[in-house]
Amino acid sequence: MNGAESLINTLIDAGVEVCFANPGTSEMQLVAALDAYDGIRPILALFEGVASGAADGYGRMAGKPAATLLHLGPGLANAGANLHNAKRARTPIINIVGDHASYHLEYDAPLTSDIVSLATPVSDWVRVCKSASNLPADGADAFAMAMEFPGKIATLIVPAEFAWSESNSPVAPPTQASAPEADEAAIDAACAALKTGEPTTLFLGGPALRADCLEQAGRISAATGARIICETFPARIERGAGRVPVERLPYFGEMASEYLKPFKHLIMVGAKPPVSFFAYPDKPGWLSPEGAACPVLAGPRENALLALRALADVLDAPSEPVMRQTEQIPPIPQGKLSAEGIGAVVSAFMPQNAIVSDEAATAGLALYPLTAGAPPHDWMTLTGGAIGQGLPLAIGASVACPDRKTICLQADGSAMYTVQALWTMAREDLNITTVIINNGSYAILNIELMRVGVAAPGPKALSLLDLKSPEIDWVSISNGMGVPAARATTVEEFQKEFAEAIAHKGPRLIEAVIV
Amino acid sequence: MNGAESLINTLIDAGVEVCFANPGTSEMQLVAALDAYDGIRPILALFEGVASGAADGYGRMAGKPAATLLHLGPGLANAGANLHNAKRARTPIINIVGDHASYHLEYDAPLTSDIVSLATPVSDWVRVCKSASNLPADGADAFAMAMEFPGKIATLIVPAEFAWSESNSPVAPPTQASAPEADEAAIDAACAALKTGEPTTLFLGGPALRADCLEQAGRISAATGARIICETFPARIERGAGRVPVERLPYFGEMASEYLKPFKHLIMVGAKPPVSFFAYPDKPGWLSPEGAACPVLAGPRENALLALRALADVLDAPSEPVMRQTEQIPPIPQGKLSAEGIGAVVSAFMPQNAIVSDEAATAGLALYPLTAGAPPHDWMTLTGGAIGQGLPLAIGASVACPDRKTICLQADGSAMYTVQALWTMAREDLNITTVIINNGSYAILNIELMRVGVAAPGPKALSLLDLKSPEIDWVSISNGMGVPAARATTVEEFQKEFAEAIAHKGPRLIEAVIV
Repeated sequence: MNGAESLINTLIDAGVEVCFANPGTSEMQLVAALDAYDGIRPILALFEGVASGAADGYGRMAGKPAATLLHLGPGLANAGANLHNAKRARTPIINIVGDHASYHLEYDAPLTSDIVSLATPVSDWVRVCKSASNLPADGADAFAMAMEFPGKIATLIVPAEFAWSESNSPVAPPTQASAPEADEAAIDAACAALKTGEPTTLFLGGPALRADCLEQAGRISAATGARIICETFPARIERGAGRVPVERLPYFGEMASEYLKPFKHLIMVGAKPPVSFFAYPDKPGWLSPEGAACPVLAGPRENALLALRALADVLDAPSEPVMRQTEQIPPIPQGKLSAEGIGAVVSAFMPQNAIVSDEAATAGLALYPLTAGAPPHDWMTLTGGAIGQGLPLAIGASVACPDRKTICLQADGSAMYTVQALWTMAREDLNITTVIINNGSYAILNIELMRVGVAAPGPKALSLLDLKSPEIDWVSISNGMGVPAARATTVEEFQKEFAEAIAHKGPRLIEAVIV
Repeated sequence: MNGAESLINTLIDAGVEVCFANPGTSEMQLVAALDAYDGIRPILALFEGVASGAADGYGRMAGKPAATLLHLGPGLANAGANLHNAKRARTPIINIVGDHASYHLEYDAPLTSDIVSLATPVSDWVRVCKSASNLPADGADAFAMAMEFPGKIATLIVPAEFAWSESNSPVAPPTQASAPEADEAAIDAACAALKTGEPTTLFLGGPALRADCLEQAGRISAATGARIICETFPARIERGAGRVPVERLPYFGEMASEYLKPFKHLIMVGAKPPVSFFAYPDKPGWLSPEGAACPVLAGPRENALLALRALADVLDAPSEPVMRQTEQIPPIPQGKLSAEGIGAVVSAFMPQNAIVSDEAATAGLALYPLTAGAPPHDWMTLTGGAIGQGLPLAIGASVACPDRKTICLQADGSAMYTVQALWTMAREDLNITTVIINNGSYAILNIELMRVGVAAPGPKALSLLDLKSPEIDWVSISNGMGVPAARATTVEEFQKEFAEAIAHKGPRLIEAVIV
């Protein structure tokens, strides 16, 4: 068995089922190994940012890593933005990056670059394989690292000659330590905060936003009156009718700090204390009120469920939450389409157990509250701020959960970043309804321009935020990549198209024009 | 004047005329500064890889840097692949990368990352600005660094608060040292090699492929019988009817080493000794014959023109080359379209002084010789092997040379990487004729799979190299981004569309189907 075969078999044996790939010459042995063995499904992406974003969506939903297969430094660089998002989401991913044969590096051939330097900022773990015989053990280590709760980005760089040389047998990953539990002191501190009677919130993020954790948070809230607030950009939150409702921290720093002003205690559960997304002249960066305590019940890599349950029990909380989200569909407006119209229709037609990939930017801030009372669903957001995540994320979620409908709510400007994703949706016949919210601009930046103090932007500045000249025809682009598409400019049109797309099993795209 | 304004004015004063941009919140002050002052033209790209590829094309043609404006680490990562190509082309580029305010970094906000680590592999020079007052001097240093002959990638990271704080006046760049000249010893060594009477070639690359250098190489060849060969992937070669013809080294290593086998002396002029693009089992990496000497007449950063002229004079060479490319248009075949048909038509209809951006991959190897006798033109190739260069490179070339026709010969698989470039061509109404050569596959990889020893690839392997399921409709995609397009499947159709596109001043796309 050569190194490539042994590596791939190690991953298969560990349970890796999918590889999102855009290989080149230096990965051809790995391609051959993917070909030769059952148990791992290669999925071609026409740009590496699609592969890494898909691996992120897969990992968020499957709770285990997909592999990516990337072509030297430039392939890794192309994957970088969505790996950055995945790292912020703490998603398990194994990147396999081919490199030149180690003895070829001295020649500085055209594709040579410092892959480790490119990989380190977007990975939690980077290793350059040192011999063919090491490859299976390296793969096993990468798997173990990726599975460190709730997930890490493990990047393994594979010099070509180790892939084609004789290697050892596949290796089982080292036994996984379970997620560390919150300690007694943390539970006592949270308990003490809640018992002060002072205004207190549970501040939830990361793995603490799954339904089981929210149940426990709901018990604590029922016992103490504590509010339940979550980070602005959760990797994955289980929400909708019947679930414990969670308030979402506003995006803009000054609104967020105003929102948090009442609290004397913010108990961190799976989240870090909130900070503003960007710095602005004379605006706060740290968002918790001055003097408020931020005790940590469970860090982002700790077992929030056990900690929340233990805290609820210590508090003698009722066995069930009092607050549950009621099923509630907002009235559907008529006429010209707007974010509100989109939100109402999505809420009305969202099927049970849907998965939402939300990169709707400014429009998304409206869509989120409008879907609060829709049937239970998962909602995934842009964790790292690197745009171009939404379409690939939907691919990965749909591959992980083929029996569930995935809905991608996608802003136009961000959609263009990884537009190649549409082709993979078509090729794999993925059950994804994509809504491109076309407002013809980087709308958020028009707001940001004012916020950094530019009062009267001129035509050159505005041209850098505008997508209307020429107008982008998303129906044409989508059809060109094999995804059937339609355009809607009124709520009625959008409702017809969205209902049809949801009923259809397969990829569809709706261009929702709200210019 | 705030830091952003002083930086932008420094660049304007130094002669930077264009900024290819995809800014975000942390760059809003720089956007305002671009807006406030005349002399620099911002051009929006809908993906940073388009911005960096365009800056490469601009720099290759203009001989001075464009700026890019990029959004933190992920924006830089997205630009990375084409910066890798530009670094290999030794193109002058100034990257301006916004970062969080320095005091905001400790909060580890979602977009925070190690920008220096991401930038270093794709830059020749990286600096993090340390204060608002330093910004103009940093800009001047970046300009000077970018202009180091023939060009370097200078990356300046600008923390947001230095952009919005009060700064100093604009600064003039330090005086540029002229390109170092080849020394007497180098000329003597080359002269000695040529006088042995043993088989010798001038091996040309980089700046030595401009017409004036080729004239001198032609004189040397006339005096000594030396062959003139160039590197496989030149950044820019001036060729066509009336120019001194240059043999191009074959791509595949074993063919290249066979090609070079006769030579006892390979005199390097602006090039490094050739090495194979990838390593393969049991194939050579170093391509020059064993025992052959590779004296350096001029390194890639030295003045090849002076060195070649001095060498020609020492040799008492005739004042004019003997060999000149004759005007010669290959016969145009009929019927089903092929790379040969495309090459013949391009050759026949190429206008005087055209610029060709060649990322046609497998097809490109056929197009190049077929256009040898076309009217004089510039030909630019993929210098770093990171695909997705061709369309953006054409943008930059056309911005630099608006009075010349730019022709982009582009393979389908690579085109998809930076397909967003089409929108910028439409917005800026650039005079570019794009030919997408649609063979429905990563054709080169089918060859490479065999070459690394995979004799009988199965369906999973082949699926990773195939672009036919679904077929990509390039006409739809192009129309969707605002570039009028047509499809050709026969030579006759292609000739009609190509002739029309060349006659039209503005962007056009032809999908040339050769499946």
